[in-house]
Amino acid sequence: MSLDFGPATALSCRECGARYDLGPSFACLECFGPLEAAYSFGDVTRADIESGPANIWRYRSLLPVPADVAAKPNMNPGWTKLVQAGNLGKALGIRSLYVKDDSGNPTHSFKDRVVAIAVEAARNFGFHTLSCSSTGNLAGAVTAAAARAGLDACVFIPADLEQAKIAMARVFGGRLIGIDGTYDEVNRFCSELIGDPLGDKWGFVNVNLRPYYAEGSKTLAYEIAEQLGWRLPEQIVIPIASGSQLTKIDKGFKELIALGLVEDRPYKVFGAQAQGCSPVSTAFKAGHEVVQPVKPDTIAKSLAIGNPADGPYVLDIARRTGGAVEDVTDAEIVAAIKLLASTEGIFAETAGGVTVGVLKKLVETGRLDPEAETVVLNTGDGLKTLDAVSGDAAPTAVIRPSLDAFRAAV
Amino acid sequence: MSLDFGPATALSCRECGARYDLGPSFACLECFGPLEAAYSFGDVTRADIESGPANIWRYRSLLPVPADVAAKPNMNPGWTKLVQAGNLGKALGIRSLYVKDDSGNPTHSFKDRVVAIAVEAARNFGFHTLSCSSTGNLAGAVTAAAARAGLDACVFIPADLEQAKIAMARVFGGRLIGIDGTYDEVNRFCSELIGDPLGDKWGFVNVNLRPYYAEGSKTLAYEIAEQLGWRLPEQIVIPIASGSQLTKIDKGFKELIALGLVEDRPYKVFGAQAQGCSPVSTAFKAGHEVVQPVKPDTIAKSLAIGNPADGPYVLDIARRTGGAVEDVTDAEIVAAIKLLASTEGIFAETAGGVTVGVLKKLVETGRLDPEAETVVLNTGDGLKTLDAVSGDAAPTAVIRPSLDAFRAAV
Ligand SMILES: Cc1ncc(COP(=O)(O)O)c(C=O)c1O
Ligand SMILES: Cc1ncc(COP(=O)(O)O)c(C=O)c1O
Ligand SMILES: [Zn+2]
Ligand SMILES: [Zn+2]
Repeated sequence: MSLDFGPATALSCRECGARYDLGPSFACLECFGPLEAAYSFGDVTRADIESGPANIWRYRSLLPVPADVAAKPNMNPGWTKLVQAGNLGKALGIRSLYVKDDSGNPTHSFKDRVVAIAVEAARNFGFHTLSCSSTGNLAGAVTAAAARAGLDACVFIPADLEQAKIAMARVFGGRLIGIDGTYDEVNRFCSELIGDPLGDKWGFVNVNLRPYYAEGSKTLAYEIAEQLGWRLPEQIVIPIASGSQLTKIDKGFKELIALGLVEDRPYKVFGAQAQGCSPVSTAFKAGHEVVQPVKPDTIAKSLAIGNPADGPYVLDIARRTGGAVEDVTDAEIVAAIKLLASTEGIFAETAGGVTVGVLKKLVETGRLDPEAETVVLNTGDGLKTLDAVSGDAAPTAVIRPSLDAFRAAV
Repeated sequence: MSLDFGPATALSCRECGARYDLGPSFACLECFGPLEAAYSFGDVTRADIESGPANIWRYRSLLPVPADVAAKPNMNPGWTKLVQAGNLGKALGIRSLYVKDDSGNPTHSFKDRVVAIAVEAARNFGFHTLSCSSTGNLAGAVTAAAARAGLDACVFIPADLEQAKIAMARVFGGRLIGIDGTYDEVNRFCSELIGDPLGDKWGFVNVNLRPYYAEGSKTLAYEIAEQLGWRLPEQIVIPIASGSQLTKIDKGFKELIALGLVEDRPYKVFGAQAQGCSPVSTAFKAGHEVVQPVKPDTIAKSLAIGNPADGPYVLDIARRTGGAVEDVTDAEIVAAIKLLASTEGIFAETAGGVTVGVLKKLVETGRLDPEAETVVLNTGDGLKTLDAVSGDAAPTAVIRPSLDAFRAAV
């Protein structure tokens, strides 16, 4: 098997630093720590990147993918809008605010980014089936990408997900297995399946392909910096489920600094959770270095991971950068969805309600500097979590088609 | 009032050619024909366009908008993906097929394009309220754009639309009025409202701002040509509701030829309707030059316009270019949605099922050349018309989290 992962040269253990050949492995044989991609970057210039396509492949020289990645069928996600959110900023009292709106991705969540990298890894390893444990968005991203790439798909979700996420994961074909249980049980089940002959030649994007998959989130960092004019934001608010996205955005910022693509200046990373599933926020506030698992109960189902794999790394990053981890109630999530929609015309899923709600709470409690340049992520789409706003999902009035009826109604 | 519509210099009557000053007017005083924007284009080069932003404003020198349009709050739609659809092409026996996927727009339909232009017109005319009659997608595009632009919104829809479209139109704020009646009744009501003091200073994007609004669809033509490497496709399949989009794509292609931006070569325009609302297809097949209104009954609610304003122009274009207008049943629409999803990972709304279904029918009946370069439009998003696939919107199996249970299920 001849592998081509572009600038990625090895896997390395995030705990003990042990190095391994590139392969479908994810845990250190020495210490059981998680593995991640390690690189030997060439000369990467702003001009090279700017001349690339309007998707994540403009950063291919910073990702574990072959140089010709754009030539193969792939969803080509990314290069989503960084919206200058003047109205929301005014409403919250923040001088310079941007929304990075990942609902513009092909299946309308940031998960298309990570899956696009995992597809390349699956091709490299000769896997025929793409799989995952999912809180909803990942399932649709995986089945769509598998359809485009000509791979089989078999994805696993908690059976009680939103109708729209189930429908979307199903329409692309492949098998969609509902599990009676929480996401954490689904995930444990997938780990067992990897060791079983049933799961042979399967690429579980967020398990045995996780060291590749996770790197896709770095593209959020790259895009934000490039869209700001090659500058890091001073503050960023990121949702947390497993915590992978947050840790990889931090990794992306650090790479840009190391490569001289942006000026080295401090930035603060803030993590956002729903109160009904806030193990990382709880640990942050208690000053703990480990995360106590919880049983989730929140409308932000996409963030409902009670035992977040990257929790400790998130705590590190929030503390090291002078950020924080905060949580909001379901009612605050709904209010934040409506605030973002009515000020900026962006319809976020509950995960976006979590970040905007946390942003509001952080500025109100003085932990976020209202004078500093701030980016808040919307990582999903309101059409997938309609129940959150269904209380208000009827016309303001229903009338006959006559001026008199309209006059009576207004 | 000092108006700035960039290269647009006048309104002209599509029937008698009479010219009028730029203003919020839409019908010819001589002959009642529809008015459209007329231009005096400067020198426009490929390089100028290519150096513009990754949205419709890269074509601002071809649109009725001021040169600084990108500086004002707007949804900045467009530059959506042209997907090389090798799998779908193989399934249908078409050698070179592309899907222009407008579900990537901010509110996930092509309507963001037309509304973005209408917002500029509303600003020019000093209107404070943005309004429309809508089959669903337009309502959400208008309320979102109004929120972003800081305008009031009051939009009108048939009361029986899909839940997702109602929720989306409502979440951005503004008033959403359901009308007991068809779209054609909603539209007639809006025409009355324009003449009433209640509707004073209101910009009805598809009525009194229609000459500006409609130009937004030209950007689909520009993008397709640019994304093909500055070349016109040989065949294109476009959905028809009022017929505006189809006529403007043709206008866009002709402009590109006239400006020397693409080679002058023949292209065939095919129109697509749902059988349950197929007045244009019926007229095409009968050889008529006018369109007989119908009462719609189809799951493709976004295309359910029984009395299409641009019907006669569509007939002209299909005949002049050697294309056709065809229709498909609701069952064919659903099958086409699933075919597109399972081959390309694109989840289309019913309108996309109409175009892909018609594409299939045209190639099977020999009217579309399977050897010629072909583009099919997906103009909307499957998450807004979930009912179309809800028969299949459950997991393939629901099991306990154990290998034994999985083995039993597969
Ligand atoms: C919409 C959305 N945002 C954010 C996340 C968080 O991802 P992570 O597990 O990387 O923390 C998820 C995870 O499923 C998600 O679906
Ligand atoms: C998704 C979608 N596609 C196509 C159309 C057709 O538009 P037109 O009225 O320009 O023919 C509409 C109109 O509402 C629509 O919503
Ligand atoms: Zn180790
Ligand atoms: Zn006239």
